[in-house]
Amino acid sequence: MTRVRIDMFVSLDGYTSMGGESADNPMGEDWGRLTASYAATRTFHERVFGDTSGAGTSGVDDTYAAAHFEGIGAEIIGASMFGLHTYPNDPDWKGWWGDEPPFGTPVYVLSHTAPRPSIEMQGGTTFHFRSGAVDDVLAEASAAAAGLDVRVGGGVRTAREFLRAGLVDHLHLMVAPIVLGRGMRLWDDLPALDRTHKVTTEVAESGTIHVTFTR
Amino acid sequence: MTRVRIDMFVSLDGYTSMGGESADNPMGEDWGRLTASYAATRTFHERVFGDTSGAGTSGVDDTYAAAHFEGIGAEIIGASMFGLHTYPNDPDWKGWWGDEPPFGTPVYVLSHTAPRPSIEMQGGTTFHFRSGAVDDVLAEASAAAAGLDVRVGGGVRTAREFLRAGLVDHLHLMVAPIVLGRGMRLWDDLPALDRTHKVTTEVAESGTIHVTFTR
Repeated sequence: MTRVRIDMFVSLDGYTSMGGESADNPMGEDWGRLTASYAATRTFHERVFGDTSGAGTSGVDDTYAAAHFEGIGAEIIGASMFGLHTYPNDPDWKGWWGDEPPFGTPVYVLSHTAPRPSIEMQGGTTFHFRSGAVDDVLAEASAAAAGLDVRVGGGVRTAREFLRAGLVDHLHLMVAPIVLGRGMRLWDDLPALDRTHKVTTEVAESGTIHVTFTR
Repeated sequence: MTRVRIDMFVSLDGYTSMGGESADNPMGEDWGRLTASYAATRTFHERVFGDTSGAGTSGVDDTYAAAHFEGIGAEIIGASMFGLHTYPNDPDWKGWWGDEPPFGTPVYVLSHTAPRPSIEMQGGTTFHFRSGAVDDVLAEASAAAAGLDVRVGGGVRTAREFLRAGLVDHLHLMVAPIVLGRGMRLWDDLPALDRTHKVTTEVAESGTIHVTFTR
């Protein structure tokens, strides 16, 4: 059965970044600290950098990183994650990921701006732009996933929208052992997920705490 | 060297309770869920209930619970934790803990109400009431601790006051795998402890996450 899955980064104090954003550093200066243990994994090196040398960590963090990429049949991301807010007037913008994005599935981009034609990329990724209700986009993505899972890839606002609406079957938090003191709060106005989902907690060699909520 | 230590309970979403308070349940209905894994330990059974039968858990939670009681030479608590806000007009009020409180040390109660004489209890506990600056009370408690540590025992407001002032050398958080969605936020306006303290993370058999910050 198709599940809706989200993986998110959060600090000990509940911030999902993005403090300290600038033109030079669009993800914010906190982003690197928040995602360091994930970016250090062998899976990330392989799947995002195309580095098949075996470089990267292979412990608990990598087990979760590998699971992140498994069994995904379609993806939903926000306009901001795709870059529509950064390049609103460029009709040829094709996202941040080059000619062969690491999705390899249909990717539904939530957008309230003028409709754009779909873009077929190399490696199985096709970007579709949808301005309808989140429920409708999810139904379309679920059909496209054909029995595999739908991942809500981000950004944080999009992920929180799905969480608030109770649409998420599996949430994986990577809690970095750092205190940010600024950014967007993950938890504000979320439903009490522990009442509807089973909770697991595990600490990786890096000190990162992995928390999962599974319906 | 005398260190200032704090142990605190917090939910995954960063709340230190105390939601759902009532006359029947002065700690709030969330408190039991937040403290369940600690209250289940063998150490808690022994030290707080006087139950030496060996009942209670003996894993990671119990290791931290035992550490909580080790090496303490003096304690500082807030007026609310002692009960001065609940029984402000009872000059004979001696706290919630009966004739033999589980402290066994001098306990400095921060109070802005009329001064009270010290109260000597059974088992080594003496309550002193102090209305001076926190720094001065801490200096007095440190001297009384005679080389052992000073524990700031609570409540949450008092603990956060010491944390905000940068006075805490060792903070131990017990992060219960639950989502409260209400209560007092632990993290608001705290300094970035990970810049000044070493962070450790560990998960207990109960699923509780133990996080420590040590200067």
